[in-house]
Amino acid sequence: MSTNLDFLLRPRSVAVIGASRSVSTVGGSILRNLLANAFAGPVFPVNSHATEVQSVRAFRSITDVPEPVDLAIVAIPAAGVVAAAKECASRGVKAMVVITAGFAEASAEGARAQAELVEIARSNGIRLVGPNCFGVVNSDPAVRLAATFGRCELRPGNVSFCSQSGALGLALLDKARELGIGVRQFVSIGNRADVSTNDLIEYWGSDAGTQTILLYAESFGRTDRFLEIASRVSREKAIVAVKSGRSAAGAKAAMSHTGALAGGDAAMDALLKQAGVIRTDTLEELFQTAQLVSTQPLPLGRRVAVVTNGGGPAIMAADACAARGLELSALRPETTAALREVLPENAAVGNPIDMIAGATARSFDAVLPLLAADPNVDAIVGLFTPTGLTEPTDVAVALARTKAYARKPVLTCIMGTDPVRSARDVLRNAGVPTYDFPESSAVALGSAVRLSEWRARRAGVAASAARPRKGPPAANKTRWLEPQEVAALFAAHAIPTALSATVKSAAEAASEASRIGFAVALKIVSPTMSHKTEVGGVRVGLEDAGEVTHAFGEIVAALERIDRRREVTAFQVQAMAPKGVELIAGVTVDPVVGSLIGFGLGGVTAELWRDVAFRVHPILRVDAEEMLDEIRGAPLLRGFRGAPAVDRAALVSVLLGLNDMVSLHPEIVELDINPLIAHAGGAVAVDGRVRVSTPPA
Amino acid sequence: MSTNLDFLLRPRSVAVIGASRSVSTVGGSILRNLLANAFAGPVFPVNSHATEVQSVRAFRSITDVPEPVDLAIVAIPAAGVVAAAKECASRGVKAMVVITAGFAEASAEGARAQAELVEIARSNGIRLVGPNCFGVVNSDPAVRLAATFGRCELRPGNVSFCSQSGALGLALLDKARELGIGVRQFVSIGNRADVSTNDLIEYWGSDAGTQTILLYAESFGRTDRFLEIASRVSREKAIVAVKSGRSAAGAKAAMSHTGALAGGDAAMDALLKQAGVIRTDTLEELFQTAQLVSTQPLPLGRRVAVVTNGGGPAIMAADACAARGLELSALRPETTAALREVLPENAAVGNPIDMIAGATARSFDAVLPLLAADPNVDAIVGLFTPTGLTEPTDVAVALARTKAYARKPVLTCIMGTDPVRSARDVLRNAGVPTYDFPESSAVALGSAVRLSEWRARRAGVAASAARPRKGPPAANKTRWLEPQEVAALFAAHAIPTALSATVKSAAEAASEASRIGFAVALKIVSPTMSHKTEVGGVRVGLEDAGEVTHAFGEIVAALERIDRRREVTAFQVQAMAPKGVELIAGVTVDPVVGSLIGFGLGGVTAELWRDVAFRVHPILRVDAEEMLDEIRGAPLLRGFRGAPAVDRAALVSVLLGLNDMVSLHPEIVELDINPLIAHAGGAVAVDGRVRVSTPPA
Repeated sequence: MSTNLDFLLRPRSVAVIGASRSVSTVGGSILRNLLANAFAGPVFPVNSHATEVQSVRAFRSITDVPEPVDLAIVAIPAAGVVAAAKECASRGVKAMVVITAGFAEASAEGARAQAELVEIARSNGIRLVGPNCFGVVNSDPAVRLAATFGRCELRPGNVSFCSQSGALGLALLDKARELGIGVRQFVSIGNRADVSTNDLIEYWGSDAGTQTILLYAESFGRTDRFLEIASRVSREKAIVAVKSGRSAAGAKAAMSHTGALAGGDAAMDALLKQAGVIRTDTLEELFQTAQLVSTQPLPLGRRVAVVTNGGGPAIMAADACAARGLELSALRPETTAALREVLPENAAVGNPIDMIAGATARSFDAVLPLLAADPNVDAIVGLFTPTGLTEPTDVAVALARTKAYARKPVLTCIMGTDPVRSARDVLRNAGVPTYDFPESSAVALGSAVRLSEWRARRAGVAASAARPRKGPPAANKTRWLEPQEVAALFAAHAIPTALSATVKSAAEAASEASRIGFAVALKIVSPTMSHKTEVGGVRVGLEDAGEVTHAFGEIVAALERIDRRREVTAFQVQAMAPKGVELIAGVTVDPVVGSLIGFGLGGVTAELWRDVAFRVHPILRVDAEEMLDEIRGAPLLRGFRGAPAVDRAALVSVLLGLNDMVSLHPEIVELDINPLIAHAGGAVAVDGRVRVSTPPA
Repeated sequence: MSTNLDFLLRPRSVAVIGASRSVSTVGGSILRNLLANAFAGPVFPVNSHATEVQSVRAFRSITDVPEPVDLAIVAIPAAGVVAAAKECASRGVKAMVVITAGFAEASAEGARAQAELVEIARSNGIRLVGPNCFGVVNSDPAVRLAATFGRCELRPGNVSFCSQSGALGLALLDKARELGIGVRQFVSIGNRADVSTNDLIEYWGSDAGTQTILLYAESFGRTDRFLEIASRVSREKAIVAVKSGRSAAGAKAAMSHTGALAGGDAAMDALLKQAGVIRTDTLEELFQTAQLVSTQPLPLGRRVAVVTNGGGPAIMAADACAARGLELSALRPETTAALREVLPENAAVGNPIDMIAGATARSFDAVLPLLAADPNVDAIVGLFTPTGLTEPTDVAVALARTKAYARKPVLTCIMGTDPVRSARDVLRNAGVPTYDFPESSAVALGSAVRLSEWRARRAGVAASAARPRKGPPAANKTRWLEPQEVAALFAAHAIPTALSATVKSAAEAASEASRIGFAVALKIVSPTMSHKTEVGGVRVGLEDAGEVTHAFGEIVAALERIDRRREVTAFQVQAMAPKGVELIAGVTVDPVVGSLIGFGLGGVTAELWRDVAFRVHPILRVDAEEMLDEIRGAPLLRGFRGAPAVDRAALVSVLLGLNDMVSLHPEIVELDINPLIAHAGGAVAVDGRVRVSTPPA
């Protein structure tokens, strides 16, 4: 299917089916917006009763329109939508936006009508947005398409916005206008029966006028395609997303709202991270980030210079920078010396640079170029509190001037509200982000740094790994592999395991232990008991055959006491692992995103800390390396309190081995290596279990 | 010193020293604000050159003013301030606000002038605000004092605000007005040479018109007094604070700004938590919280009902609630049934209650009383997205009506900006908080729940423990106690320790081990090596005399290899601790806050996780109990993965023992019990070290 959405977003003519004289109806409001915003082609109202609507000649049916129609906006009751779609098809319409609700989101009957709609669209080469949506917008002066209801004033810009929520649509456009963010194109995809987030990212990826892509998403459709497209586009354009349904409560709400399975949040987080998409927690942070990335270069690093005329705001900014993983730059000595020259004696020339209350627009003009020229500074935050000594708008002009010479991002905050509105306008019109509070600049900068670092790590690396077909959904029959099958699988993918043998009796255990070499561990093998330690099914550090025999007896006795002896199918004798860091690595399948590779801290407290990094399969080497650094326990790998650093290459190799394993065996639905012991000389899987899904008999 | 600040905040007459004809000067602007806001008494301009200023008779000196002056505002150059203060004293002025900067914050000379100012004030019974401040405000209609510069319009309300930053002052007042927060009194304390945050909390604590107290603080003076006053006032009124200088970078900036030592953030956090002060991370969250607590009752629990006409905003709200530790209520069956009655079939009557796009103001009117009546609901969040079907202001009226019948907090969000401004005004005027984004309601509610839970835990408990004198600052001579001193100290405070003996030789070690009973551990005693494991100075699980002798030899050999044998003063033989959870408990001294009691996870990874809760000494039993629940590792105490729960009472007793120890021995400057082993039958200190400060010889 073509992702050329030109007929949708750059139509030469538009029909509004359900155009009404009353602008308080949806159809009437859409027509008014199209006319009031001076759409560049003809607009044809379609209304079964009126011959002219809002002073424009109207038609009873789209089939009566005497000229070709590229785009039809449908805003009539749900019962008539399928018939209208058939008429659109017969009239040769190229794209449809169905505003009407009452389809798959509402009922099974609605879902059937939606399927029929999609069938009509696909078989006639029509691209379809919606149903159940807020409309589409293109502010390009050559197009001026405002096909939404509610108040809509176009403000051209380089930000394109896709929202899955119609309810948020109007509010998001309003907010963008309030913040001076120019929206190039906006699409409310509603039930995304045809046109999806993926289609739009792809389209905007090759739209020269779009520099930043914003997403509000409650669910994703084809995540494999998302990963491939988004990680390609993220290299050139910033994609900033709110993916809601993050919490269990939110996911439940999202599911009842869209009817789509939400997928686990860890899976979504992994997907977005891998694709280079900046995920923000809130809509507010989405806008704060958009203000920065749509106007300024990305910061090349985390080192920030803060310049201010008041101490309080600078302290708030410094705190917020630290909270977002940014640092205050150590300025070059030359810079400090030059600051001393241009600033009064009482000023603080460290960082924050506090020019104190006497500072004027001239002070900013003197200091900003010095910071712009200092290679130790990756980004500049300029703060100003009105003092009565200098006009806030003059300070804004000084800050805005940086646009001409600073090759690094500049962010600003002019404290106050109404009285500094015009100063803020100066900055927004110049393309310099400005915020109500100093903390917001750190939020935006933290987001931008994440993208910048993602790009740097991926420089010269393939955009994303080739995506194999997704594994089959877990069938109704699954089984755990036997220890010898696990051992063979791990061996085939070069995952080192501790020497071991499966035994049935105490005597056999003792003899195998002697062959493997002491000390050994003795463990139960059981398809039903996965937490072996809790049931007394694990004994470690057995030093000779006698201890093995004795331990065997004790394990059996313990299990008999709790009446679970029969759940044990065998015993495993295993060489004791070398001392090292207890880790966990594995595979899990998310219902939406598919297979995930996980890596984190292991041991009995693993469930407490939940310190695990995930990536969507398939992963690249750079992903594996990132996972090692991402866990909170990362210092344990680097050598903690005198311990030697572990063998990172061995861990990366284990993760890539798991990745290959999943590529070759999509039937793997669960895999845990716990513990995976890492030490200076390598990594070894001490215990592993693998569950596979087999087709129902 | 009296904390009656009536002369400062409810003066009968005001003089402005430095009043100028030009309103663009500080003194001129203050005079204009006093006049324009119709101060309730006479205002006397003092100006050495003019006979009338802004149409008011002016005087050359305050001594020439023919009537008594309660409050003098000083806005003249720093060089003349001390002389002016002397004249104020001779004229019988009762309170002074010194706006002028250039004192302790600027130079040593300035600090001397400030000390002189304080001396003049104290010896003449004058309360002094500043120097280096933005002024004071009282919006009480009986007073109408607007003694600040910049634009100042009074908006009466029940929120009183103390800011340490003058630069933030104007911006904070502006923001409050924008959000419809009525400010009763505002004081910019500047260098807080006399009137402090503590004085204001105490004053506002007994001011019937103040219901909520907001603080912006960069440092605290007497933290013992703060704890005592704030924890008393927090029982009746909400105190919401931003304490900046949270990060190392922020603390450095704060120190260079105020010259005051910042104190560690963990110490500040402990102080605020103990005092029941709601600490917010950002100014934005401060205002979001203030909007709620100044207008609505506190929630009695964490269970929230969300009602909406659009899915997207509800999902965002649900996510944000989860992120702030709130839950979505399970509604009573009666409520769900009643919702089914009043809502259309397509509506979702779970929680969030999605009334879908057809909802009108009537829908809100039907649903809100049902939620207000459901005892499973502790708070209501109402979300509305304009649809064209119903007027946003009508919805606002429905939401505002809850004020009359709901005995639980109601928070709202009307999506959009300009077009919904009047709907927001309806809510703000009615005292119902309303936010730009749904997430903000969860921020505010999370803050309010913290205060509500703090009050509940403290019901019937003394306000705060009696505060003993603060321990002496660490003297230049400190020493570690010997093991037998530590043992005696712990025994005196009922802190159980593992049986142990100090020995010098291998033979002595073996014989003491036999006396204590096997298994034992053998450890070095060293004043210089605190991380004993790293140097090979600890051996555990020694089962007989032979193993003890052997281990002794190995330790000595290991230390000789690294040439640190001479740092070992003795050896300790100790009974092996029972199996249990490895914890840490101790005492540390913060330079500002004083002694802190700490409790958290121990073991070699303690430094990695930094999972430690702190409280300011002295603590109450309720504090000790909170600490146990506060650490992330708390599930380990409750019985994790089949382990039995540990003896909580024993842990509380250890923490109260440490508390008594510090009360009796303020010379303790550092104390660590690591590990403290907790098990089902008690808790035992396995290793402890105590450093005391002794006065210089």
